Amino acid sequence: MDAQNQVFTFGGGTAEGDKSMKELLGGKGANLAEMSSIGMPIPPGFTISAKICKYYNEHDGQWPEGLKYEIQDSIQQLEELMGQQFGDPEDPLLVSVRSGAAISMPGMMDTVLNLGLTDQSVQGLAQKMDNERFAYDCYRRFIDMFGDVVMGVAHEKFEIALQKLKDEKSVELDTQLEVDDLKELVDRYKKVYKNNTGEDFPQDPDDQLRLSINGVFGSWNAKRAIKYRKINKITGLLGTAVNVQAMVYGNMGDDSATGVCFTRNPSDGKSELYGEFLINAQGEDVVAGIRTPRDINELKEVMPDSYDELLELTNQLEEHYQDMQDIEFTVQQGKLFILQTRNGKRTGAAAVKIAIDMVDEGILKKDKAVANLVEPGHLDQLLHPQLKEDEIDENDILGKGLPASPGAAVGKVVFDSDIAEEEHGKGNPVILVRIETSPEDVGGMSAAEGILTSRGGMTSHAAVVARGWGKPCVAGCDGINIDYDKQQFTAGDVTVRAGDWISIDGARGTVINGKKEVEAPQFGDNFRTFMTWVDEFRDMDVRTNADTPEDALRAREYGALGIGLARTEHMFFGEERIREMRRMIISESEGERRSALENLLPYQREDFIEIFEAMEGLPVTVRLLDPPLHEFLPDEEKEVKTLAKELGISTAELNRKIRLLSEFNPMLGHRGCRLGITYPEITEMQARAILEAAVEVKSRGKEVYPEIMIPLVGTAEEFIHERHVVDEIAEDVFAEKGSEVDYKVGTMIEIPRAALIADKIADEADFFSFGTNDLTQMTFGYSRDDAGKFLEHYLNEGILKNDPFQVLDQEGVGQLVEMGVTKGRAAKSDLKVGICGEHGGDPSSVAFCYNLGLNYVSCSPYRVPIARLAAAQAFLRSGKKVAS
Amino acid sequence: MDAQNQVFTFGGGTAEGDKSMKELLGGKGANLAEMSSIGMPIPPGFTISAKICKYYNEHDGQWPEGLKYEIQDSIQQLEELMGQQFGDPEDPLLVSVRSGAAISMPGMMDTVLNLGLTDQSVQGLAQKMDNERFAYDCYRRFIDMFGDVVMGVAHEKFEIALQKLKDEKSVELDTQLEVDDLKELVDRYKKVYKNNTGEDFPQDPDDQLRLSINGVFGSWNAKRAIKYRKINKITGLLGTAVNVQAMVYGNMGDDSATGVCFTRNPSDGKSELYGEFLINAQGEDVVAGIRTPRDINELKEVMPDSYDELLELTNQLEEHYQDMQDIEFTVQQGKLFILQTRNGKRTGAAAVKIAIDMVDEGILKKDKAVANLVEPGHLDQLLHPQLKEDEIDENDILGKGLPASPGAAVGKVVFDSDIAEEEHGKGNPVILVRIETSPEDVGGMSAAEGILTSRGGMTSHAAVVARGWGKPCVAGCDGINIDYDKQQFTAGDVTVRAGDWISIDGARGTVINGKKEVEAPQFGDNFRTFMTWVDEFRDMDVRTNADTPEDALRAREYGALGIGLARTEHMFFGEERIREMRRMIISESEGERRSALENLLPYQREDFIEIFEAMEGLPVTVRLLDPPLHEFLPDEEKEVKTLAKELGISTAELNRKIRLLSEFNPMLGHRGCRLGITYPEITEMQARAILEAAVEVKSRGKEVYPEIMIPLVGTAEEFIHERHVVDEIAEDVFAEKGSEVDYKVGTMIEIPRAALIADKIADEADFFSFGTNDLTQMTFGYSRDDAGKFLEHYLNEGILKNDPFQVLDQEGVGQLVEMGVTKGRAAKSDLKVGICGEHGGDPSSVAFCYNLGLNYVSCSPYRVPIARLAAAQAFLRSGKKVAS
Repeated sequence: MDAQNQVFTFGGGTAEGDKSMKELLGGKGANLAEMSSIGMPIPPGFTISAKICKYYNEHDGQWPEGLKYEIQDSIQQLEELMGQQFGDPEDPLLVSVRSGAAISMPGMMDTVLNLGLTDQSVQGLAQKMDNERFAYDCYRRFIDMFGDVVMGVAHEKFEIALQKLKDEKSVELDTQLEVDDLKELVDRYKKVYKNNTGEDFPQDPDDQLRLSINGVFGSWNAKRAIKYRKINKITGLLGTAVNVQAMVYGNMGDDSATGVCFTRNPSDGKSELYGEFLINAQGEDVVAGIRTPRDINELKEVMPDSYDELLELTNQLEEHYQDMQDIEFTVQQGKLFILQTRNGKRTGAAAVKIAIDMVDEGILKKDKAVANLVEPGHLDQLLHPQLKEDEIDENDILGKGLPASPGAAVGKVVFDSDIAEEEHGKGNPVILVRIETSPEDVGGMSAAEGILTSRGGMTSHAAVVARGWGKPCVAGCDGINIDYDKQQFTAGDVTVRAGDWISIDGARGTVINGKKEVEAPQFGDNFRTFMTWVDEFRDMDVRTNADTPEDALRAREYGALGIGLARTEHMFFGEERIREMRRMIISESEGERRSALENLLPYQREDFIEIFEAMEGLPVTVRLLDPPLHEFLPDEEKEVKTLAKELGISTAELNRKIRLLSEFNPMLGHRGCRLGITYPEITEMQARAILEAAVEVKSRGKEVYPEIMIPLVGTAEEFIHERHVVDEIAEDVFAEKGSEVDYKVGTMIEIPRAALIADKIADEADFFSFGTNDLTQMTFGYSRDDAGKFLEHYLNEGILKNDPFQVLDQEGVGQLVEMGVTKGRAAKSDLKVGICGEHGGDPSSVAFCYNLGLNYVSCSPYRVPIARLAAAQAFLRSGKKVAS
Repeated sequence: MDAQNQVFTFGGGTAEGDKSMKELLGGKGANLAEMSSIGMPIPPGFTISAKICKYYNEHDGQWPEGLKYEIQDSIQQLEELMGQQFGDPEDPLLVSVRSGAAISMPGMMDTVLNLGLTDQSVQGLAQKMDNERFAYDCYRRFIDMFGDVVMGVAHEKFEIALQKLKDEKSVELDTQLEVDDLKELVDRYKKVYKNNTGEDFPQDPDDQLRLSINGVFGSWNAKRAIKYRKINKITGLLGTAVNVQAMVYGNMGDDSATGVCFTRNPSDGKSELYGEFLINAQGEDVVAGIRTPRDINELKEVMPDSYDELLELTNQLEEHYQDMQDIEFTVQQGKLFILQTRNGKRTGAAAVKIAIDMVDEGILKKDKAVANLVEPGHLDQLLHPQLKEDEIDENDILGKGLPASPGAAVGKVVFDSDIAEEEHGKGNPVILVRIETSPEDVGGMSAAEGILTSRGGMTSHAAVVARGWGKPCVAGCDGINIDYDKQQFTAGDVTVRAGDWISIDGARGTVINGKKEVEAPQFGDNFRTFMTWVDEFRDMDVRTNADTPEDALRAREYGALGIGLARTEHMFFGEERIREMRRMIISESEGERRSALENLLPYQREDFIEIFEAMEGLPVTVRLLDPPLHEFLPDEEKEVKTLAKELGISTAELNRKIRLLSEFNPMLGHRGCRLGITYPEITEMQARAILEAAVEVKSRGKEVYPEIMIPLVGTAEEFIHERHVVDEIAEDVFAEKGSEVDYKVGTMIEIPRAALIADKIADEADFFSFGTNDLTQMTFGYSRDDAGKFLEHYLNEGILKNDPFQVLDQEGVGQLVEMGVTKGRAAKSDLKVGICGEHGGDPSSVAFCYNLGLNYVSCSPYRVPIARLAAAQAFLRSGKKVAS
């Protein structure tokens, strides 16, 4: 050991450590030191350095020289500060002992409370508290805890003894035991202890403390702790520190109290002390809800001095931590102790208001407010309707699915898209409930207030479409059983019929029985001000994924700087269009196909004209046809019949063609550029529609920047083929129209192989856009439509930390993204690179993209503000200088 | 230009260049120089260096100083060697001009023949040949060729003139034109030339030559050539060389002849001159088949001197090139010219015999024979029955599918697996014809002589199973239309009914009408001797993919040094087993599942005992259950009913469960270790069966090396989970049995993500085996079952060079394999790494694996000898020293 301190004291307004010393003091110890050093009246104590843990484990459980004396000194200092003596039979100093490493981790010894109690001192405590019951209850819990966590006597053994006594006394609840029962229980617990350890329960507080400290040190190498560190790749730590801290009690009479408070109102952000307290109570009483706590402001009348001090201290904490604080305190016989402070959780509205106010009050600067005070998720709340929190009764919850698209919705259940449209037409709000949705449901989805499916993941059709529209959706709720025939679904014992009211919360994934109340999205001046601040610190663009002019305009309002992904497939679902599309698909000759495509051209061109006009002056990336063709064909018998009649062929013939087109694994099938290469006439038609529209919009005096994106490229040859088709069409169109527009041709990097050979593709391409949905599917080998079957299990078991379809898997998929960027830019240094998968709206993924140097992220319109904030925060955390 | 030669002459038994000078002389020029320098009487000529091409293209079409004179000198030398004068009206020296770069590439100017012909010299040629028709036909062709390839006059323009003349003369064939017609045609061609170039057709041979040389140089930068180089990433070349060579004619009378010959018999390898010739004929006459050529040995009687010389020269060529040669020759008025020599194509039997003989004859050493004289594909022929080549009539070919599993088979058509088994039982050979096969067809597949499917790719179920068994299979033959109801298939106009005879050639993918004759596989002493040589140069192991003791034993005979992949899923298809398996699958509680698994355990254990005994002393890698569970359920209504009855549940209930288990993209679904993680009891049962079997076999005194392979791992956590289950079971089994065996636990690297995080997996795993089938599927995003729809188009269009399911895609998938090896070995330097995908039996893929340092490749039993040879060749080509 070097000459450094082995033990660091805190309390009495000073501390030997501070928040920077996590490595030695652990997270908990460093925080206690910090609070103490800024003068907070915390219960005093000391932290034994993690270095000692290392020494202990490397020296067969020996303590280093001098430790014993340092601990003695620290205890003495503690005794002085508390005015109590360790082991004093009249007024014993009691302490807690806790582990605490630099990184928080489960599996180590947690907490021993009330250490210092003995057969003698328990009587002193009882007297001092004037509460014999409380004292003996503390003592029997201490024996249990010490026996369990320090000496390895299984907690169940104490439980058995407790149950036996309760049976003898014929009571059901612990609280029904009398004082004498508790005294008896202490004796029995001591016997359990002796039977299992072979020793008497230690009556010397110093022994208790020594054993507890050793228990903490030893627990560093417990199997669970080692496994946890291994799984989480935690290496390089010294060990765990040990925190020994005086116990304080809020239940020492009417001059004692305990409470929790926020420095500002966490619901609306108003600057006021907000919280509650109880006189003569322990912290757990406040939480347990047995007694009704009083409003924190009443403390002013009851304990004016403590209230004033608390007000003073809370302001000080807020200034120190530059954030709204959530504080636990205890008043012990008139003396205020701050037990804990942390940044307070708050609603989106509160977060934005607090950020604005704290900057106005001069507590922090705009950059810190943007970086720390508002989480991207907070904005999500502001942008969508919310259920009134306190309304939801556990019993009303019918099931929990995936939080597929945030926002709350209330409506009558319908199981059919046509009926949804009908009811919507009559002014009735509906929730569309389907096992899963398909492109044929879009009408009904659009008409519904919200969507509920029993199958499919975060990137299922329902989820993707709903997010795109900002419409609430709960997907893959497999707890409900839908029966279309009976027009009902069941959830456990409950049966919900078509026409019944339900409510869904797309942010939480909950499905609620009945008609709940909903709050409209609330953004006003604060939101707008905050977003202007955000953009001051953003140097990566945010675009939107939008397929319609309406979406494009909405996204523009939300600050999108272009379209990163306009899918063209949804454009084929209008009544006229789908017929021509289907005619094209079942064509058996190029000639037939061309004739159907010719009929589709004017529709596509008109779509693009509207989108280009909506996005005047901004780039618009249009992805060519992507899904397998069979997705456009009907699958229900009735519809097949109708279609056969329309197309003038027999149902049998049509069925044969449908079968021919069906695929075992459509996700890995004949789609994307594979369609354009086998049927170049499709690419030709789409390129023509895009470029003719661009020329037209330009002729109307508007700036237009079309970017044509080739989907599902896996080889450079594929890209070259498709680019060639586009370039030839461009030459033709420009010659025919006598006018040119600048256009780019790029590709989606969404197949693992594309990332691996990104340099070769970049030689030919003007831009890349990472399609991380498909890239995630193929890199993991997960079908987004099927993964629900095991993903939840994986998340519960910790096999996966996040759903990779929601949060970009940086370890695996991220490597391919990085490879794509690096290789792409190596071949073409000014290659424009963006991302247009669902991850473009996920804050941690946005940060990852920022750090890789992407030019933009693109996400659904409603996530644009979130992505803007995430991008600004990524900038602020990158350590780049703010341009000012 | 430096002082080096600009022009390199060859001919007359010497040459200024040699075969090492490809960069300057191009491939063609270097070969001509080589032949000449070893004394071959080739038509003399000269090669203009590719450096000149570079100069020409960098200097606006200027020639470097001195080039003109070097060419003049070379022409003069040529005139002396040929005894003819360039431009001589009586006996003109005629030459050919050809391009030729260091790497062969299309898109450049090809060939101009008969250069030197003019209005005057054509008459000389006619007289000398005593064939006016031939001379004028040469001339008109020369004008066409020169106009087209040198001057850019479209060939069609000459064709139009030709057609017009034929119409006027009312003839249909070119050969029906009279001499005077050809003379007229020459005039008309010259007009076409003038109209399109503005100049007269050059009558000075020097002008013709100069323009042709410039034409070759210029064609280096033709669009097609540039595009070809770009696509094929050909860079760093100087340009193309130009080869000018004297024309020789085998049709100058009865002292002239032309022929082709092999130095040994290419069918059986016998050491004898083999080939044919025609007196007074051109090379194309031999090929065209208008006149019947004579056996080469008759040349001895007709032209004894030429024959003796040819025999002498062919021996010399064989010694020089150390390989059997395929030679073209021409005798012009008694003088023998060798036009071309190249290594001759041969059958598998011939290849092995030639290799053995040439070593015996001292022409080369064993290492060269193994490295160069037998291609892995040759062994394939030896291992499978073959159709007698000359039997197949084009008209009998019903269709062409994928060559899914080599060998020929003949049998009666059956469409149903049960009937196949029945007929086989009666001793009737059958070909099983199915749209596609499923695991339920294995009985019928096993009973059939061969398998034909109309759908599915090289790694479809039919193809994989058939290759595993060495049974001929043609897959994905989409030219045939199968109608199960009518019990027939149609191919074009032909209808083939159940019971009709067909023959299939699984090496070529052909389906042939009728009962063709088949030759049995022919391996004898030569094959065995050769394989012992092979193993002297092999330092990478070859294992086999085998699921049964029979396959294991067969593979051992073929030299397999272990099992690299024993799939366990096929083991569940026995009658009793499939019932228990299905009971397990539809269980809704762990208890039910465990009880079904308990019934399966003895079957699995028995399987493993047999396999371990068959592989005594060698490692056996067993892969845990991989396919999605629904693959084990029936899909036909009748079978569902039967199963429901067996399981004692309603058909509706069973159908509901089947629906629940169905997946959109089963390939990316709930399979592999995802099953073992959600249902650990499956892993437990399988681990127990393997380890109990191993202990049992060990107790019988046999060495056993089980390697348990976890499939479809994508995260380290998955592997840790599964390994933990296996290790716990091992502890239990060893304790129960009181005996231990060494076992390993490793994983398949078959998901892209696994390769990306291979270091993290290697921390926990004992071995890796690359599952390149799935890795290819996911890296490309191709479903092997669906890719047929576009793969053929891709191969035809050159988007892909090879089917990536047959030949490992080194550029993309190979990067992941390399990454897996490098990262895996970085984490664990002695990590055992193999490959068990279909590519393990593909020679180029074996070489790739060898160069990456894999410990073994594993392939189906019948490919083991091929892989052994490929491994030896990879070693010999690696430049490693032979240990002796």
